[in-house]
Amino acid sequence: MSLWHGGDYNPEQWDPAVWKEDVELMRRAGVNLVTVGVFSWSSLEPAPGEYDFGWLDQVLDLLHDGGISVDLATPTASPPPWFSRLHPEALPVTADGVRLTHGSRDTYCVCAPGYRTAARGIARELAGRYHDHPALAMWHVHNEYGTTCYCDLAAVRFREWLRTRYGSLDRLNEAWTTAFWSQGYADWTDIEPPRKTQYLVNPTQYLDYRRFWSDELLAAFLEQKAELRAVSELPVTTNFVFGGWVPVNHAQWAAEVDVVAIDHYPDQAGSGAEEQTAFGADLARGWSGGKPWLLMEQAAGGLNDGRRWHTKEPGRMARNSLSHIARGSRGALFFQWRASRGGAEMYHSAMVPHAGPDSRRFTEIVDLGSVLPRLAEVAESNVVADVAILWDVECWWAMQGTHLPSSSLDYLAAVRSAHRHFWHAGETVDFAAPDADLSSYRLVVVPSLYLISDAAAACLAAYVEAGGQLVVGYFSGIVDTELRVRLGGYPGALTELLGVRVEEFHPLPDDGSVALSSGGHGRLWSEHLHAVSAEVVDRYAGGVLDGEPAITRHDVGAGTAWYVSTELDDNTAARLLGLSRSSLETVRRRTGETTWTFLINHGEQEVIAPVEGVELVTGARVDGELAVPAGGYAVVRSA
Amino acid sequence: MSLWHGGDYNPEQWDPAVWKEDVELMRRAGVNLVTVGVFSWSSLEPAPGEYDFGWLDQVLDLLHDGGISVDLATPTASPPPWFSRLHPEALPVTADGVRLTHGSRDTYCVCAPGYRTAARGIARELAGRYHDHPALAMWHVHNEYGTTCYCDLAAVRFREWLRTRYGSLDRLNEAWTTAFWSQGYADWTDIEPPRKTQYLVNPTQYLDYRRFWSDELLAAFLEQKAELRAVSELPVTTNFVFGGWVPVNHAQWAAEVDVVAIDHYPDQAGSGAEEQTAFGADLARGWSGGKPWLLMEQAAGGLNDGRRWHTKEPGRMARNSLSHIARGSRGALFFQWRASRGGAEMYHSAMVPHAGPDSRRFTEIVDLGSVLPRLAEVAESNVVADVAILWDVECWWAMQGTHLPSSSLDYLAAVRSAHRHFWHAGETVDFAAPDADLSSYRLVVVPSLYLISDAAAACLAAYVEAGGQLVVGYFSGIVDTELRVRLGGYPGALTELLGVRVEEFHPLPDDGSVALSSGGHGRLWSEHLHAVSAEVVDRYAGGVLDGEPAITRHDVGAGTAWYVSTELDDNTAARLLGLSRSSLETVRRRTGETTWTFLINHGEQEVIAPVEGVELVTGARVDGELAVPAGGYAVVRSA
Amino acid sequence: MSLWHGGDYNPEQWDPAVWKEDVELMRRAGVNLVTVGVFSWSSLEPAPGEYDFGWLDQVLDLLHDGGISVDLATPTASPPPWFSRLHPEALPVTADGVRLTHGSRDTYCVCAPGYRTAARGIARELAGRYHDHPALAMWHVHNEYGTTCYCDLAAVRFREWLRTRYGSLDRLNEAWTTAFWSQGYADWTDIEPPRKTQYLVNPTQYLDYRRFWSDELLAAFLEQKAELRAVSELPVTTNFVFGGWVPVNHAQWAAEVDVVAIDHYPDQAGSGAEEQTAFGADLARGWSGGKPWLLMEQAAGGLNDGRRWHTKEPGRMARNSLSHIARGSRGALFFQWRASRGGAEMYHSAMVPHAGPDSRRFTEIVDLGSVLPRLAEVAESNVVADVAILWDVECWWAMQGTHLPSSSLDYLAAVRSAHRHFWHAGETVDFAAPDADLSSYRLVVVPSLYLISDAAAACLAAYVEAGGQLVVGYFSGIVDTELRVRLGGYPGALTELLGVRVEEFHPLPDDGSVALSSGGHGRLWSEHLHAVSAEVVDRYAGGVLDGEPAITRHDVGAGTAWYVSTELDDNTAARLLGLSRSSLETVRRRTGETTWTFLINHGEQEVIAPVEGVELVTGARVDGELAVPAGGYAVVRSA
Repeated sequence: MSLWHGGDYNPEQWDPAVWKEDVELMRRAGVNLVTVGVFSWSSLEPAPGEYDFGWLDQVLDLLHDGGISVDLATPTASPPPWFSRLHPEALPVTADGVRLTHGSRDTYCVCAPGYRTAARGIARELAGRYHDHPALAMWHVHNEYGTTCYCDLAAVRFREWLRTRYGSLDRLNEAWTTAFWSQGYADWTDIEPPRKTQYLVNPTQYLDYRRFWSDELLAAFLEQKAELRAVSELPVTTNFVFGGWVPVNHAQWAAEVDVVAIDHYPDQAGSGAEEQTAFGADLARGWSGGKPWLLMEQAAGGLNDGRRWHTKEPGRMARNSLSHIARGSRGALFFQWRASRGGAEMYHSAMVPHAGPDSRRFTEIVDLGSVLPRLAEVAESNVVADVAILWDVECWWAMQGTHLPSSSLDYLAAVRSAHRHFWHAGETVDFAAPDADLSSYRLVVVPSLYLISDAAAACLAAYVEAGGQLVVGYFSGIVDTELRVRLGGYPGALTELLGVRVEEFHPLPDDGSVALSSGGHGRLWSEHLHAVSAEVVDRYAGGVLDGEPAITRHDVGAGTAWYVSTELDDNTAARLLGLSRSSLETVRRRTGETTWTFLINHGEQEVIAPVEGVELVTGARVDGELAVPAGGYAVVRSA
Repeated sequence: MSLWHGGDYNPEQWDPAVWKEDVELMRRAGVNLVTVGVFSWSSLEPAPGEYDFGWLDQVLDLLHDGGISVDLATPTASPPPWFSRLHPEALPVTADGVRLTHGSRDTYCVCAPGYRTAARGIARELAGRYHDHPALAMWHVHNEYGTTCYCDLAAVRFREWLRTRYGSLDRLNEAWTTAFWSQGYADWTDIEPPRKTQYLVNPTQYLDYRRFWSDELLAAFLEQKAELRAVSELPVTTNFVFGGWVPVNHAQWAAEVDVVAIDHYPDQAGSGAEEQTAFGADLARGWSGGKPWLLMEQAAGGLNDGRRWHTKEPGRMARNSLSHIARGSRGALFFQWRASRGGAEMYHSAMVPHAGPDSRRFTEIVDLGSVLPRLAEVAESNVVADVAILWDVECWWAMQGTHLPSSSLDYLAAVRSAHRHFWHAGETVDFAAPDADLSSYRLVVVPSLYLISDAAAACLAAYVEAGGQLVVGYFSGIVDTELRVRLGGYPGALTELLGVRVEEFHPLPDDGSVALSSGGHGRLWSEHLHAVSAEVVDRYAGGVLDGEPAITRHDVGAGTAWYVSTELDDNTAARLLGLSRSSLETVRRRTGETTWTFLINHGEQEVIAPVEGVELVTGARVDGELAVPAGGYAVVRSA
Repeated sequence: MSLWHGGDYNPEQWDPAVWKEDVELMRRAGVNLVTVGVFSWSSLEPAPGEYDFGWLDQVLDLLHDGGISVDLATPTASPPPWFSRLHPEALPVTADGVRLTHGSRDTYCVCAPGYRTAARGIARELAGRYHDHPALAMWHVHNEYGTTCYCDLAAVRFREWLRTRYGSLDRLNEAWTTAFWSQGYADWTDIEPPRKTQYLVNPTQYLDYRRFWSDELLAAFLEQKAELRAVSELPVTTNFVFGGWVPVNHAQWAAEVDVVAIDHYPDQAGSGAEEQTAFGADLARGWSGGKPWLLMEQAAGGLNDGRRWHTKEPGRMARNSLSHIARGSRGALFFQWRASRGGAEMYHSAMVPHAGPDSRRFTEIVDLGSVLPRLAEVAESNVVADVAILWDVECWWAMQGTHLPSSSLDYLAAVRSAHRHFWHAGETVDFAAPDADLSSYRLVVVPSLYLISDAAAACLAAYVEAGGQLVVGYFSGIVDTELRVRLGGYPGALTELLGVRVEEFHPLPDDGSVALSSGGHGRLWSEHLHAVSAEVVDRYAGGVLDGEPAITRHDVGAGTAWYVSTELDDNTAARLLGLSRSSLETVRRRTGETTWTFLINHGEQEVIAPVEGVELVTGARVDGELAVPAGGYAVVRSA
């Protein structure tokens, strides 16, 4: 088993003369896997039905001759201009009715039958031609499933999906609470996607559209996968993308891919990017059910905050790559091999920059390529974590609606905040689904789980009963999966487990805070909380809630359930969770009796780590202590 | 006569089992009026022409049995989805041409004949069925008339309205100054609503569209009112709504309703909400011509600033309710009785919160219900005020155009600022229309009356001549009702009365200010002002206007007219108006020889008020002095 | 030869009785040129084919009788409403598909054949009727060519333009790098304007649309010019407008007008407006190839920052007018003569304000009118400058795309910054095109010339070789005219000339900066720079680039080429350029042996200037020294 090193390779942008140099440079850099074809549709089928595979044959042969494996992509994320001419009905429509035009990428609606047929067609062509090419290692369907659309074709599919989900209009009307604002549906055809309307949209309609869209994208993926599987047994994947807008239920999709693969572009510079790296990697491992996964894309040289590229400092790219691998990635791949000469992403940083191989950027790629083989033995091992944070994309979608009591409520921010507390202590956590088996965890943290199913609530109760330690954050347990409030007092589904009852929310202004009697403070949110059968751990001090409970604990069965009714400052949170600061990212992986300890020093001081064994990069023996230099890293195998 | 206590009741959202508990809880809370049916169209007419009145029959009977009166609403503010299917032409269109879809509320264009027919139809059905139901106390047409539309059907109606207003295109071309930018109209059909265009819109076209729209909404209201009046003599109202966007000329509409009713949702937290409460209540009384009116909706538990709900502190809901009643409301009603389980406004605070009746929220509602009957005797009395502030919605609309010399000019802010000066002194003011009879007032304040008719100018002159004290603010008197500048020097229509002439405006930057020789300062705006026949009261000190007049006074006949050419700081304004600070909101009402004094203490200290008589809440005798505790209130009757 | 004084005159907004007063006031103010007809289409052709020239005959006769010349405009920038009724297809469409309506100005698409025919038609009518009117001095085509459109008619023209530019789709696909994101075009009809699309647009498509649009507007201009030229030999111009959005390649257009004319509305208050005045005037002179040009419009009384009018302080209007004239304008004209009574720009400041002639505003206009004749002798002289800054609108357009490595890169800001350094020293610079003959300049400054043609690069090399001093700013030389990166290291086309190689960009955050070893600092941007054959002048100090070169110099032939890899603070830039501060704007003009020195004191202190000759305003003899008072100006002729 080896670790993958390489990235997206787009030879169609370059003269064939460059291809030879590419393979030579790839070999120098130890590249062993490249993704080919992601944006090649117009090169492979320049006019409708006219195929040109010659160049791709040549590229695959060249790569194979160079010993480089290929992850071959279906190019369906970017249909050629002629497709839009033949299928104007497949151009996407925004929520306010603008039909987009070709001229970027991803200009299709996945609900358009014409698109689906064309996508299956090109996938079939590729599968037929290359399924037994010796370079082929993996299939890569599409790219970053992520578009959305509100066209009439999407409306038709949405209605079918709703009919399946609800069976009857009565059930739908109840689930959507259409009695409010006179929205009762008398006919399935009256239902529209949540397009631009006069005022606030129905929140369940909004949530169901998000659910529907993930399912529809998945159906499109599965159609292509079926074409590939028909002729090939190689693993099939697609690259998940995660950002402020996520149209896909990754946890659900993970069951349908042979390898969970993610693209990861942190959008903060500085240490924020490191937190995001760990966060994304842990999420990917969560989706993958703890199994190894694959970092399919990262940027070699920069972090883009949406306004500019922050160039990665020397060493950062390697540390970030190691962090991904430590947390379960089967390698470190990049977008893209060679920086484009033109086009919309010509300044997207690449493995070979505009300056060419004579550059720090390429040198670091070569260095990474020399290190990875020495770490190959970790590839199949498991990451060790005894803490889990719950993550549920449906809850996030639910909280992206416009109906909440405070627009500052932010599910992603709440989960990131929980993860950050452990990150700052250098500790590794897993992400788990709300209805997962949590019994292996010492501690489970539940940030703002606004939407919760009955099953998930039962699951949490069982976990505590059996001895688990559960910490539940504010604004949890409020609604069921149809966004209907669980009445009688918040946190609805969890009141009994937590032994509390919340009478009323007290949202805080963005620049406000509320003191706690322990000396810390809360931000963003507070609640008028009653400790019904719980013990009070901390209280609000001052303000309208002066003296009322803020944090409670409730012993249940063999375990304990805490409730935290505000967003805690970092120190208070760390104290509650029993954490202390460390700049050393420490991740342990294990197979049988063997443990590998990844030590990545993000600080500006050397750190001495207590560890024993063999350091894999240097091969040196470590006797109980290892000094990890500032900005450095080490991987130690202990028998 | 009693005071109304209650709110919007939406039983269609709940199981019939809940209805019985509702009536029981209403009785406990002393509720005596509920508004039913506002959003019931799809429940009453689930499919076109298929009516289901059974549930409403049952609800009205239950309420009547519980001794609770009903304000029955026509549900026309939210047509059912099937209506949009049958009348796609009635879906509203934005100024940039987006046709909205169903999925919220208010998705109709009031100019669509299909909508008007349907609205009259459902009103007729309701009137026919319930006109003699014993629970019925009032009719409530529609809800918060407030939508706008730019569709072709609206264009047709707009042209008809213009033809009526102007008679000829020559007159319209002159009024709109179409000679500028080559906009001369040669045909009525060339005229469009002020849709999205290349650059700045014609300001008079914009203003006329606002006027037209108010008239068109009024016509729609009157059609429904006629249906109700045909079979019932009960009072008919509609709930006015007031915010940053007001499509309705309330002063004009007031003549057409039997009771002026308002919904009031202050959008600031803290003391701002209290100022807004007084402001809205005084405006409602002004529209009502001084007669009692009705607070139809307020939020029981929160203040929504557009980003979050700020939960009302203990006691605030009662103080706000009392403030409304002090200023003329016939009661204190709420939206809504029971917090929705789902839907877009599930977190809109309610009389019965999600936590249920076992909550501070509901307890406060019950407390209020116990107090109101003791205050019933004030219901028909008049509010006493000897100061008026002018308010003119047309002036506001005019200043919402894009043509002004400074985008920081803000009519509403200027009027609020004037009102705030009196509020901070605990004094009560009336709002009056510019052409009203002002003779009963000691003092009249005119904030930024940019647009002024000849009649209004004459009215102000007559007021001063007869002995009135008039304070006119900057940027007043500039244009006539067609937005044509009154030439020769600002403030145009008022130069003679004020004895001044403004040569040029000097707008100030948002973060700038200009010192005054008195020690105060001005913000936002200044003017190059000449005291032609007026006396200079204060001067600019420093800056380009150094030494020039800033405030003037002019004795005219038996009265005096002041001019203030900048936005004064609060202290300077208070000094000019002879006001001093008080945290005690004091409002007097009178009938014949009887005076009722409302005392509401918004401060954090007890206040001693000089008052004599009987305190109505406690029934205690007051001998010359009453201590009103911090956050408390009292109502004292003096013979 | 005289200097022009006057402005836009829109008599159609006023009663004929006012016209007589206008001419009388114009005479009092020394007005000698007015622009008539800019917005007169609906007055001249109130209905299709029905002309009314009577009023214009009368106006022109009145002006001629008053000795006032006329710049007669074709009114094609604002077609009448009836035109839009007859040609709905000519209403412009935004990038997201909104078709605009009439109701402002400029609501036409210049690609609509119906519009082009109508525009030629009204131009022909005017030419035929007035070509020999004795008042006529100049033709003024259209107004501020500046609209854009994305309609289907524009798409057709765009494709024609592309076909001419590229000849084949293969060439276009290469130029646009369509191999990226699968955008390869198989048919010309697949190409669209850069309308709203899913994600980032193709940057070369975007740039070509800007180029195309300038060419299309120019074609429309030339059609009208041909109509006028057919019957008249008088000069033909159009008024260029310059702001954040500039759809026209002025340098290219300048070859087609008989007089370069600009409208100039600085959008900053305070000293920023003075810098902008000099900047705009120098640009106009650059477009005009150094020849005198004409300030066609400025605002008499205010500076509009987009949010408000900042009233010009006493004396500022005169200083701004003199600054324009010093820098080559043949006069100082205004928009507009008389402030409108109504319409969208009623508060646009004017020569005769709403207050009337009895005003400081008009008095200053009269004063200016008395000064200008004394300066007439400068009209044909040349401005003296030995420094040039390069300016290229195509580079600006290229940098307005969305593909750059930092969205804070701003071509206009970079050029303004370079110009400001000289402005603050009171020194005059020229603007030159990148491929101009630069041999007459001592120094040439090249701010962020991102896009550079091979020819321009060769031109700069030749300039240095022959002894020139060249200072090149960061982010220069990167791409060719098709936006394809020049590979191997930045600044691509200039690496050899500068003797440097940039390996990687290091964009800085907006609030960040990087220290320099000289003590100054850089903002916005930095680069990993190697001094290959250049000498290091300054280095980065601290941060990731600590110790790396920041500024270099390279001796080449008889000259020197500097490279500056960051945005320097003002002091460091001034030191590098050998400049020192002065509040005295000094501009020299020359004809043969005669020199005129304009001295404009923008400071708050008197400045003594070393100058000798005759001061033209006062006629006084100056013997070696002249005291220019704070806010004052002087013009000294030296033999």
